[in-house]
Amino acid sequence: MVYMATMDFDIIIKNAQVITMNTNMDFYNKGFIIIKNSKIIDLGSMEKFHSAYDNKIDCKEEIDAQNNIIIPGFINSHGHFAMTLFRGIADDLPLKEWLNSYIWPIEANLQGNDCYIGTKLAAIEMIQGGTTSACDMYFNEPKTLEALEEIGFRGVLGHGMLDFGSEEKRFQEISETKKLIDIINEKAKLCTPIISPHAPNTCSKEILLAAKKLSDEHQLPLQIHLAETKNEFDEIKAKYNVTPTKFLDDLEFLCEQLVVAHSIWLKKKDYQLLAKNGVKVSHNPTSNLKLGSGILDYRSYKENKITLSLGTDGASSNNNLSMIQELRLASLIHKGVNTNPEILPASESLKMATINGATALGLAHDIGSLEKNKKADLAIIDIKSSNLWPPHNPYSLIAYAASDCNVVTTVVNGQILMKNRQFLTVDVQEVLNEAREAIIQLIDKSKLSQFSEKLTYLK
Amino acid sequence: MVYMATMDFDIIIKNAQVITMNTNMDFYNKGFIIIKNSKIIDLGSMEKFHSAYDNKIDCKEEIDAQNNIIIPGFINSHGHFAMTLFRGIADDLPLKEWLNSYIWPIEANLQGNDCYIGTKLAAIEMIQGGTTSACDMYFNEPKTLEALEEIGFRGVLGHGMLDFGSEEKRFQEISETKKLIDIINEKAKLCTPIISPHAPNTCSKEILLAAKKLSDEHQLPLQIHLAETKNEFDEIKAKYNVTPTKFLDDLEFLCEQLVVAHSIWLKKKDYQLLAKNGVKVSHNPTSNLKLGSGILDYRSYKENKITLSLGTDGASSNNNLSMIQELRLASLIHKGVNTNPEILPASESLKMATINGATALGLAHDIGSLEKNKKADLAIIDIKSSNLWPPHNPYSLIAYAASDCNVVTTVVNGQILMKNRQFLTVDVQEVLNEAREAIIQLIDKSKLSQFSEKLTYLK
Repeated sequence: MVYMATMDFDIIIKNAQVITMNTNMDFYNKGFIIIKNSKIIDLGSMEKFHSAYDNKIDCKEEIDAQNNIIIPGFINSHGHFAMTLFRGIADDLPLKEWLNSYIWPIEANLQGNDCYIGTKLAAIEMIQGGTTSACDMYFNEPKTLEALEEIGFRGVLGHGMLDFGSEEKRFQEISETKKLIDIINEKAKLCTPIISPHAPNTCSKEILLAAKKLSDEHQLPLQIHLAETKNEFDEIKAKYNVTPTKFLDDLEFLCEQLVVAHSIWLKKKDYQLLAKNGVKVSHNPTSNLKLGSGILDYRSYKENKITLSLGTDGASSNNNLSMIQELRLASLIHKGVNTNPEILPASESLKMATINGATALGLAHDIGSLEKNKKADLAIIDIKSSNLWPPHNPYSLIAYAASDCNVVTTVVNGQILMKNRQFLTVDVQEVLNEAREAIIQLIDKSKLSQFSEKLTYLK
Repeated sequence: MVYMATMDFDIIIKNAQVITMNTNMDFYNKGFIIIKNSKIIDLGSMEKFHSAYDNKIDCKEEIDAQNNIIIPGFINSHGHFAMTLFRGIADDLPLKEWLNSYIWPIEANLQGNDCYIGTKLAAIEMIQGGTTSACDMYFNEPKTLEALEEIGFRGVLGHGMLDFGSEEKRFQEISETKKLIDIINEKAKLCTPIISPHAPNTCSKEILLAAKKLSDEHQLPLQIHLAETKNEFDEIKAKYNVTPTKFLDDLEFLCEQLVVAHSIWLKKKDYQLLAKNGVKVSHNPTSNLKLGSGILDYRSYKENKITLSLGTDGASSNNNLSMIQELRLASLIHKGVNTNPEILPASESLKMATINGATALGLAHDIGSLEKNKKADLAIIDIKSSNLWPPHNPYSLIAYAASDCNVVTTVVNGQILMKNRQFLTVDVQEVLNEAREAIIQLIDKSKLSQFSEKLTYLK
């Protein structure tokens, strides 16, 4: 037996069912986690705790997690945070009408402060559902950064670059991206940058090449929407006589640091191109279904051993930011479409929502699983709830039965952001009130109320 | 102006967004509901309230529902309540293995008290998600009745009759059903009976005919699983050389009081048979996807104007009893499968989860919409939550963005069962503890632990 002096830690969580999501899928039916200075110092079974730490430690915060599951925080690998403001603004519409009549007119009036408030709303929603990191592709990213750093949420932020072939716009977008990288390098404690050209059919070859170059030079992850709709597929086919995926391959855009979002409309060879180049995918099932875009062919990805992560997309095509709902839907839909209940078992959808998200965003050294020396990003789920009881199987409880509200406590970078459903780093009611004011003004400015009586519900 | 004496009511709810789900789909952006003696006495806009009732009424309970949506309670038209005990017991398995190795061995040991406890757990879960009525098909229904009447939940209860061709079993099942009808008629304040033969491939022609006769004689609704799996389709085809639907039609089993559950494997003429005979459907998308049974062809039902309601099925093939998740999934999956975002808009999925459920179960005169003189069965949803804000469109908030936990208050038959998430008619923790004990004993009795290490998580 080894004797130690009293040790000083930040947080100790005891008596929890610990789902580590590490390579061995280690699970502790009664386990502990010790956190200090943003990191996991140690974890394991309560037997280990008693023999190694009992009466030898001091800590600022001790959490008794009896009847709780601890899981690595969910990682949302594709979204547009500030679009929370547009939740429900236009549903059940064809994509073109949705964009032309609602989203684009209102986005034309979007100011930095709107993105700041919309992002705070998004972060609150994600934290209450156990998400601890998320990737954003949008405008006014310095304001997004400000919002997330204030709250303590781990963002991977990219300025959405689209030039529609205009050279002036291209230079502007590249400059915005460079500016964002500088600001993040200078100011951010938690957030990191990603290079985010929008899509093959909204970007020129030149801006795609510039984006790839930035990614290589700065060793940064790269993200793009790919093959989301049949329309995009047909446009690229008509213009370049190749599939969107082959189009990117021809530009030597496909690479290990790339994560492609949606990625439904692929031909057989396209999967091989993604696999060969080590490309990762952000699967966005809710958005794909809701917009009628189609259904990703899970079996082709699986056969080609391509890493699939999960994303919610924006709240106006989902209409929430729940990773628990997203992983449940992924697991259900691919079983149904393939009439095979063995496809995408609970442990696999949990991988997609955690460690695979970390891999996709180039952060697997730091997050995505509960392991010694990784960042302490985690969610605590109370299973003594009528929808999660009796507790036969922790993996399937989360994958099939849970709701966001079963998450009681969320920790990012060793900081408790929500404890027993109470937010510690942001005034939720204030953000809700500001969000309502922001969207009322945006609708007025955009003269949107002419399009829909529904918008009167807001007032 | 009419002057009235002071009026005495039970509950007044004010300042709510009221979704009535009546034939006109009336909506009050600031509305009220008055409840007395289990019924809705009046409802409408706050203007009407001020002119008709201000200072003229007295009531036991007044609820200020600012920033709340009121909606008719959800109606779950197909389930097996006590299977909550088996939530997560066996997931990601082929149907046959799921049944043979887990569900049937354990059901063989199921006692009345297990069903009593499992049903209480189911009712608690449904109430916290805004469900106020549900249809059950299972064993030990008198104990199910006892559990629901104690809590104050509106059940439509049927003894699941299956004889696999045995005459002895047939008489037993018919006798159980008659006994249940008598007990309900004698004791029940809220619950009503339904005749529930199990499925075309588990029932003899004789028991099906006897069930139909009971339904006619007692003027009771009738429910059966129909065409849930390809396997069932193939079995009936091999045995009778017709589809399962045509098989029931040949028996003159199809009728207006019949609701068929699942109903995926139909041929074109089968839809016409259901339509011609006024049969209603309980659509169970989660269960169908999770078990890999297939995907119901929504367009064929729509084209044939067949009433579709929604059911969760049992908690061991879902794995929860959330009608909000069920209606969301229905709306999403049919858009996706048909690559058409306009299919099954929010208002339509809400109909499926409310008034269509009432119609399917023969209760539309009493429940399913908020109307004068209907029973006061309703859910109050708090929209000032990060996942439901800003409140652009109440229908789409519920259909696409909500979770069960956004339901704050649930009323059945004019009685508040849950108020601000607190249960008033049942001790939730006690039921959770009893459920855990019950399933531990059942697993021991069934010698199930040999099949799966997962079951050790429970202890």
